[in-house]
Order: sequence, then structure tokens, then C-alpha cells
Amino acid sequence: MIISFEGGEGTGKSTHAKILCAHLEQHGLPWLSFREPGGSPFSEDIRGLFFHEGLDTITELLLILASRRENVVNLVRPALEQGKVVIIDRFIDSTLAYQGVLGGLGIGRVRELMEKTETWIEPDLTFVLDVDPGRALKRIVPGDKFELREPAYHQRLRQAFLDLAVGARHCIIDADRPRDQVSAEILSAVDRELQLPGG
Amino acid sequence: MIISFEGGEGTGKSTHAKILCAHLEQHGLPWLSFREPGGSPFSEDIRGLFFHEGLDTITELLLILASRRENVVNLVRPALEQGKVVIIDRFIDSTLAYQGVLGGLGIGRVRELMEKTETWIEPDLTFVLDVDPGRALKRIVPGDKFELREPAYHQRLRQAFLDLAVGARHCIIDADRPRDQVSAEILSAVDRELQLPGG
Repeated sequence: MIISFEGGEGTGKSTHAKILCAHLEQHGLPWLSFREPGGSPFSEDIRGLFFHEGLDTITELLLILASRRENVVNLVRPALEQGKVVIIDRFIDSTLAYQGVLGGLGIGRVRELMEKTETWIEPDLTFVLDVDPGRALKRIVPGDKFELREPAYHQRLRQAFLDLAVGARHCIIDADRPRDQVSAEILSAVDRELQLPGG
Repeated sequence: MIISFEGGEGTGKSTHAKILCAHLEQHGLPWLSFREPGGSPFSEDIRGLFFHEGLDTITELLLILASRRENVVNLVRPALEQGKVVIIDRFIDSTLAYQGVLGGLGIGRVRELMEKTETWIEPDLTFVLDVDPGRALKRIVPGDKFELREPAYHQRLRQAFLDLAVGARHCIIDADRPRDQVSAEILSAVDRELQLPGG
């Protein structure tokens, strides 16, 4: 089973991914968690290149797909074979949103390239954490090239994630609430999906 | 104008690329030369990842295309706009040979991915330096993962380059001859193409 966390900057993806891991741990369920771009040490090296300023969008896409392909082969597949729950902080929807919509390459073209490079894997459950960017960005110290972009960019990014969240796997979560409320909603959706007590 | 040098390991590509640059310099022609993977400082960083041992072939392809895309945008296009002759040590044919044929992804699939990522640019002239691998590999100290592969790999690689060299742009050069003879053949082909005296 694959669970992804998606959404703009400062919406709490990594926090809620960690809370979910602790929850699975409590239930004695094996899990693997990583962030994209990054994950394996090799993919973390690609991450360093990905955040380079002024990169052409196609170059950016090729780098994120190289990082993902490496993760699919060396992290995701072995973990699934071992029966682990795989939790990913940003996955295919971020690629569609950042490079496809915001980067202007188009959703269809980006998805086709993912399919043709065997980097398109649909999670079983995708949490889209939704917070108004004006409020979300106050939660973080902007550091990378995406976080530092202008407010209009972040508004379009929020809309892109909402527009993409039309699959049966997508759960849009109002993440502009106290953390415990947000995590309670996420964990109960996971419990239902995994048929755990309380789900 | 774009001129590429292709062929197996130890066939003299970089040597003859350098001789060609010196020749253009003598004729007062502006030029830009680089090797792939690599080229710009950014692409040289990708080169470091590309030679990682045990890499999945699709990951390898995505990395070489990221490196090429960066070079197309930041090196090739500006150089062509400035009227420079662009000389590339390994280019699209190496990708077809290494990842398409030897890596097993298939020529059609690799070419399609290059076209869809705007990394497929056909040179005006491509020199395929041909030397029996048993003799070519004696010229170098094998270092990277490709150079260190078994003799059968290098034989298949040689055949792949010969099989790919069917375009009007391809010149197969018998590079198992004294260097001056080889470079004389290359330079006179370039002179003809550039309509230089002596061509």
C-alpha cells in the first residue's frame, strides 16, 4: 500500500507523514517513509541539483523522474514486496502540479513521460493538505526556489493541487485547523483503508 | 552547425574533437566544444551521478537527458545563435547505443523520449570512430563502469554504433590507423561541409 502527502509549501505534509508513521508503528505495521525529490542517498544527490536556481522546466522534470525511478526500483518495490506501507512526502501529483501546471509543460505531457519512464505509480491514498498560502507560508522559513516564489505562484499551486484531486484515491484535507484535528482525520481514513480497529 | 564524435571507448573521440577545434581556430572560425555527459558545470555534476555503479537503465537515461537538456538550453542554442560550430564528444547516437541497444530499452523508445523531452537534435555531421575494441581498450586505462565491462559488451557496442550509422550525416571512420591519417580524413570532411579551402 502506498500513501502520498501532497499540497503546497508549509501545509504540514512532513509533519503528518511522521504522525502517520508513528501511528502505524503503534499498530505493529511495517512502513517505509521518504520525501521527494530525495529518498535514497542517490536521490538526495539528485535533490541537490533539482533545487538549482533558474533550471529549465524539462531539465527539472527529467531530474525529478530520475530521482523517482531510483526510488521506485530501490525503495518502493522492495518495501511493497516486504509488505510494508510506503509513505511518500510529495509524489506524482507534485510533478503534475509543479512541472505540468505551474511549469507549463501540461498535465498530459508530464503524465505521458512518467508512464513511458515507468515512474507513474498511483498511490492507494493521497492526502492533499489544503491551506491558504498566505497562512501556510507563515509556518515556514522559505528557503528553496519554490518556497521563495511570489504569492500568486502559491495561489496557482494551491488551485492546481485541488484541480488534480479528482481521483477516488484523493482526500482533500482542510489543514488550516489544529494539528490534532487534521491528524485525526488522516489517521481515521488510513485506518478505514487498512481495516484497522477504529477505522 | 553541430558536429558529433561517436564510437566505443578508446577510439580517440576526444583527441580528434580537440584536433578539429584547433583546425577551426586556425581558420578563424568560432567554436564551442564539450563532452557528454557533462559540459556545463551543472551537467558535470549530473555526470558524477551518471557513472554511479548499478544504476537502473531508465534512471541512467533520465540523467543523461537532463544533462543534455541543460546543454541544449545553455550551451548549444546560444552557441548556434552566435554562429559557432558546436563540437560534441558523444551525443544522441551514444544514448541510442548505450541505453537503447546495450541497455535494452530499444532505439525507438529512447528516440521517442528524446523527442518528447526536446533533447533530440540531429548533428550536421557525425564521425563514428571505429576500432576493434580489443585494440581500442589497450589505448586507455579503463576507469568508469562502461570501460570496465567485459569484451563481449564492447563488441556489441561497436556493432550498435555501426548499425546506427545509416544517416546522411554519419561518416564511419576507420580509426585504427595513425592519428594523422584519421584526422586528415575528418578535417577534409569538415572542410567540405563548411566549404573551406581544401574541402
